[in-house]
Amino acid sequence: MKKLMNAPESILNDALQGFAAAHQNIISLDQTARTVFRRQPKEAGKVALVSGGGAGHEPMHVGYVGRGMLDAACAGEIFSSPTPSQIGKAAQAVDRGAGVLFVVKNYAGDIMNFEMASEIHGSNAICVVTDDDVALLGRSRSNGQGSRGVAGTVVVEKIIGAAAERGASLEECAEIGRQVNAATGSMAAALRACTLPASARPTFLLGEGEIELGVGIHGEIGRERTAVQNADELAEIFVQSIFAKLKPDRNEPLLLLCNGLGATPAMELWSFYQAGRRRVEARGCKVERSLIGNFCTALDMAGASLTITKLNERTMSLWDDPVETPALRW
Amino acid sequence: MKKLMNAPESILNDALQGFAAAHQNIISLDQTARTVFRRQPKEAGKVALVSGGGAGHEPMHVGYVGRGMLDAACAGEIFSSPTPSQIGKAAQAVDRGAGVLFVVKNYAGDIMNFEMASEIHGSNAICVVTDDDVALLGRSRSNGQGSRGVAGTVVVEKIIGAAAERGASLEECAEIGRQVNAATGSMAAALRACTLPASARPTFLLGEGEIELGVGIHGEIGRERTAVQNADELAEIFVQSIFAKLKPDRNEPLLLLCNGLGATPAMELWSFYQAGRRRVEARGCKVERSLIGNFCTALDMAGASLTITKLNERTMSLWDDPVETPALRW
Repeated sequence: MKKLMNAPESILNDALQGFAAAHQNIISLDQTARTVFRRQPKEAGKVALVSGGGAGHEPMHVGYVGRGMLDAACAGEIFSSPTPSQIGKAAQAVDRGAGVLFVVKNYAGDIMNFEMASEIHGSNAICVVTDDDVALLGRSRSNGQGSRGVAGTVVVEKIIGAAAERGASLEECAEIGRQVNAATGSMAAALRACTLPASARPTFLLGEGEIELGVGIHGEIGRERTAVQNADELAEIFVQSIFAKLKPDRNEPLLLLCNGLGATPAMELWSFYQAGRRRVEARGCKVERSLIGNFCTALDMAGASLTITKLNERTMSLWDDPVETPALRW
Repeated sequence: MKKLMNAPESILNDALQGFAAAHQNIISLDQTARTVFRRQPKEAGKVALVSGGGAGHEPMHVGYVGRGMLDAACAGEIFSSPTPSQIGKAAQAVDRGAGVLFVVKNYAGDIMNFEMASEIHGSNAICVVTDDDVALLGRSRSNGQGSRGVAGTVVVEKIIGAAAERGASLEECAEIGRQVNAATGSMAAALRACTLPASARPTFLLGEGEIELGVGIHGEIGRERTAVQNADELAEIFVQSIFAKLKPDRNEPLLLLCNGLGATPAMELWSFYQAGRRRVEARGCKVERSLIGNFCTALDMAGASLTITKLNERTMSLWDDPVETPALRW
């Protein structure tokens, strides 16, 4: 698999350096620590937000550092967690006296390392775990217990980030984060698997007429290998599975996020967003907020996910608050 | 080639509808005319900007409609120009009394149709043609005379858009646009060709060890088929070719845009941006403004382009002016 890189060993550092150079008005990079910080630290007395995870999901998480979202993001090696000391140092650097909230995607390695970092940081640290993926609900998985944290993590980080910026306490931020995570469901399908930079082969092989339904963001296989569906049929499966978790009322405002997995062009994402929107509206529900783009990727995987979040007055207002990061800005 | 779509005949309308629904606070879509307009029309007495072209280059051009950039964008069928009457109607709708400037990428069909629309609109209309691609400088091409207009068009549209918003006259806007186009060079390479929605096969086939150097954004083959290069080697060819056109002084501030062709993941784009930046800095020049992402794509082509623009005090300040469009915002 051809890639735009110098070498598998250098692509991650090259990518982080390029990202940091291009966005130096918003963020700064500690290259040794592989950690991205806000260029302008948050005011004293406000809760700091730290996230991170394996690389390969760009722009997640480093792209979400900036005013109104994260204070720091730690990148691990590709598809493997940052270390406890790396996370702990980031937390220490950004704690402005009101404590540190860690947003952690639900994978065994991430949970372990962020919890260790949180213990080291002490009593003014809380972990909020995201587990929005509905594809494997009630099934076992190889890299953790319960559901995986995927693109819904962006929604959680945006809304907690706004709350922290407004001056919410550590406990309030954690409560909001858990509520948003519980109100969020995601599902993905791959048309083509991803290939690790050091590998010659994709993580799994799909036939010309096959897709991988419920795929994860680390190249792990999904719930089912199935025949290619058209956009409406696929969106129907996604929305049905997500609604089975969320059970939204018709009057609850919904956020719909259509996320590309890395190699999906805009025309397909826009068309798939529209398919998802139609399936939501067919159920009498209303999409009040939207996002389309590459937000939580799996290297060069082709395919997409839909994420739906049930909003309320408070979380919709927090979603609308200004945000100024490399990957999300309004 | 699997795609997220209902059918080849419907993907473009579905995509435009999804795009419009997700960004309805900024733009509105006239579905019949396949034209996207600013939600809030520009103040009377300011020059209106209209662009457009074949679909398949999303987010170009519809993603650049909004305050500080385009007033309207017309989408043609995939890889074919919008019609003169479609463009003419868009111009009529957005003319606020100070005339209409058309930004046109240099392809035979686009030139013909935009010039016809411009003639119909009358004396208060001017076409500015972009021809930033340096890959085929001095060589013949199948779909037009001279160089192709590619990703540099985004830079031209952003800077003219800011000038129009400030109240520059039609002649001033055209002069700025031509100056920026002349100060801009681009070059692209494909790792994998694109596949048209109605086709089962990519527009050309590359071996596992080959890339297409100087590729166009319509799946047309490029300058040379060559062995895979690493990111630094490829960036060196690009920067050398672009500098041969621009001949920048060391004290001229440069804008560096790394553009994905549709199926290139963020990690590779960030790493390739960094390679480009290193090759620019190795020549003693300075990158003062940057942009990384998918801005001018070729459906699901894998690969990237670099664009460099020589800025001056005026154009850098216009670049920095606020912009509020679905695809470009600061």
